[in-house]
Amino acid sequence: MPNVNRQLRLQSRPKGLCAPGDLQLTESPVLELQDGQAVAKVKYLSIDPTMRVWMADIPQYMPPVAIGEVMRAFGFAEVVESRHKDFKKGDRVVGLVGFQDYALIETGQTRPFQKVPSIPFVSDTAFLGVLGMNGLTAFFGMEIGAPKKGETLVVSAAAGATGSIAGQIGKIHGCHVVGIAGTDEKCDWITKELGFDAAVNYKHPDWKKKLAEATPKGIDINFENVGGEVMQEVLSRMNLFGRVVLCGLISGYTSHDPGMASFGNVLVRRLRVQGFIIIDFASRFMEAATEIGKWKMFGKIKDRETIVEGLEKAPDAINMLFAGANIGKLIVKV
Amino acid sequence: MPNVNRQLRLQSRPKGLCAPGDLQLTESPVLELQDGQAVAKVKYLSIDPTMRVWMADIPQYMPPVAIGEVMRAFGFAEVVESRHKDFKKGDRVVGLVGFQDYALIETGQTRPFQKVPSIPFVSDTAFLGVLGMNGLTAFFGMEIGAPKKGETLVVSAAAGATGSIAGQIGKIHGCHVVGIAGTDEKCDWITKELGFDAAVNYKHPDWKKKLAEATPKGIDINFENVGGEVMQEVLSRMNLFGRVVLCGLISGYTSHDPGMASFGNVLVRRLRVQGFIIIDFASRFMEAATEIGKWKMFGKIKDRETIVEGLEKAPDAINMLFAGANIGKLIVKV
Repeated sequence: MPNVNRQLRLQSRPKGLCAPGDLQLTESPVLELQDGQAVAKVKYLSIDPTMRVWMADIPQYMPPVAIGEVMRAFGFAEVVESRHKDFKKGDRVVGLVGFQDYALIETGQTRPFQKVPSIPFVSDTAFLGVLGMNGLTAFFGMEIGAPKKGETLVVSAAAGATGSIAGQIGKIHGCHVVGIAGTDEKCDWITKELGFDAAVNYKHPDWKKKLAEATPKGIDINFENVGGEVMQEVLSRMNLFGRVVLCGLISGYTSHDPGMASFGNVLVRRLRVQGFIIIDFASRFMEAATEIGKWKMFGKIKDRETIVEGLEKAPDAINMLFAGANIGKLIVKV
Repeated sequence: MPNVNRQLRLQSRPKGLCAPGDLQLTESPVLELQDGQAVAKVKYLSIDPTMRVWMADIPQYMPPVAIGEVMRAFGFAEVVESRHKDFKKGDRVVGLVGFQDYALIETGQTRPFQKVPSIPFVSDTAFLGVLGMNGLTAFFGMEIGAPKKGETLVVSAAAGATGSIAGQIGKIHGCHVVGIAGTDEKCDWITKELGFDAAVNYKHPDWKKKLAEATPKGIDINFENVGGEVMQEVLSRMNLFGRVVLCGLISGYTSHDPGMASFGNVLVRRLRVQGFIIIDFASRFMEAATEIGKWKMFGKIKDRETIVEGLEKAPDAINMLFAGANIGKLIVKV
């Protein structure tokens, strides 16, 4: 049983990137185990963009890491001693180990540790990546994207742990897959090794033109990991009824872009934003009008009109809308 | 048969609001009808925010109105003469009549005119509002919003033609309905006459506080007509798994907010944006990992790792993500 545990604790919340001192190395004794506890030696830490969010004091999907707390991290560990009925020495586990040498496993933990098997030819680290959170994120994200054969999928941060798998799942589903990444080496890797159909280096000055060339039929699915300008450009090339899987917004985690902050809320709160234009529902107009007519007849729906007289007043009437000068329906009587 | 048709034609594209001269009044003769044509006297024009979009030379769901063309408008008209087999003199119709005295009805029009019945106690103008596009838009928009009893619905531009009906449909479904509008008179109308539970005047300096008080349980559905700061504030109060029905973004139609432009694409292209966090899928992790494991085994998915050695390097590793210094999964070996 070890007696010193090195830990990296959050000392101050980073502004932009992590600065020296934001995380401070401390040492604490490893306490004697109580019944229902086990201790595991941390072997690998998963490094994920979401950590930067955990370090910030903003609303998010878990509480932010508190000042003085060991930095939260997902990782792979091996049980070295146990008085816990579900774990024994030598068990291999994944879970929120934290930035430290030894993680405590306890009965009734909010986010319990999971045992992982030993599989021939599968590295321990695979349980943090392709067989872990990144693979799972790519899998369920692509389920949301609902890919159909022949559709165009664009993945940003395409050489990252999640994006690289999402794109390959797109290929499995028969999509035309285009990745956006930030170096030529990454672009080469995803096209030559992973089988993406094309890659666009967004640091090249003509990347928007290249993206257009790589998506001649527009974009049906956007697996979005980046946000900001990259996302804006992709959205401007989306086809009607496309799907945007909002998985990450890494470009916004170290800066503050108020226009894009809304997408942060969409992501963190798992919102579904649906754009719609009424003409798509034309085949059901009669059904709806009948229903509305009934509501109106029974007084469940009331309406009101603001009427402007004269064709020549029509341009002013348009402006009235933007000045909020009408109540209810605005109509020009010709 | 009349012989002069007054028309308002688009002469220049407005910058901001419509300026005098952007639409110009012209007169043209009413031509003699050919077979398959009818002419209808325009009685009412529907004035809608989308018109401002039609006047702009930007990508949208119909072609923009061309310079020199009669301004597009939905309206109510009455057939005054017909050589068209489906319409006879006296028929009441709705359709894209345009800003003019007389609209031409032709066989094979892309967006054909619809006959509307004469219903006791229902005004002609109702077919442009509550029983027309606005009612239909509110109806199908609320279908997308999927309201459940007891949920909180927030409608922006709530005293407008569409918003006022959307909110009332929310009440029919048993929602707690809060409207956002720009005058106290509008706020009074929607609460006292239409039965909204609360109204917030976004021109009051403390409107954000008022919105918070009116939505103590957060917001489940946002029927969004405005965009910009109003939408940002609403999004910041959305509950997990909320729905945002993106119906209009009127605050952006006369200005250019690059951060919000993305939402314009979501609306016009009818995109579905879905935020998600992997922990929601925990109950299906085994299913997904099994599938991914198979793909990996058969070489359909490849992965790669960037490994950094040493717990003390973990803070630098976080920064590497934002510098794009890793390819594939980034791991710290402790």
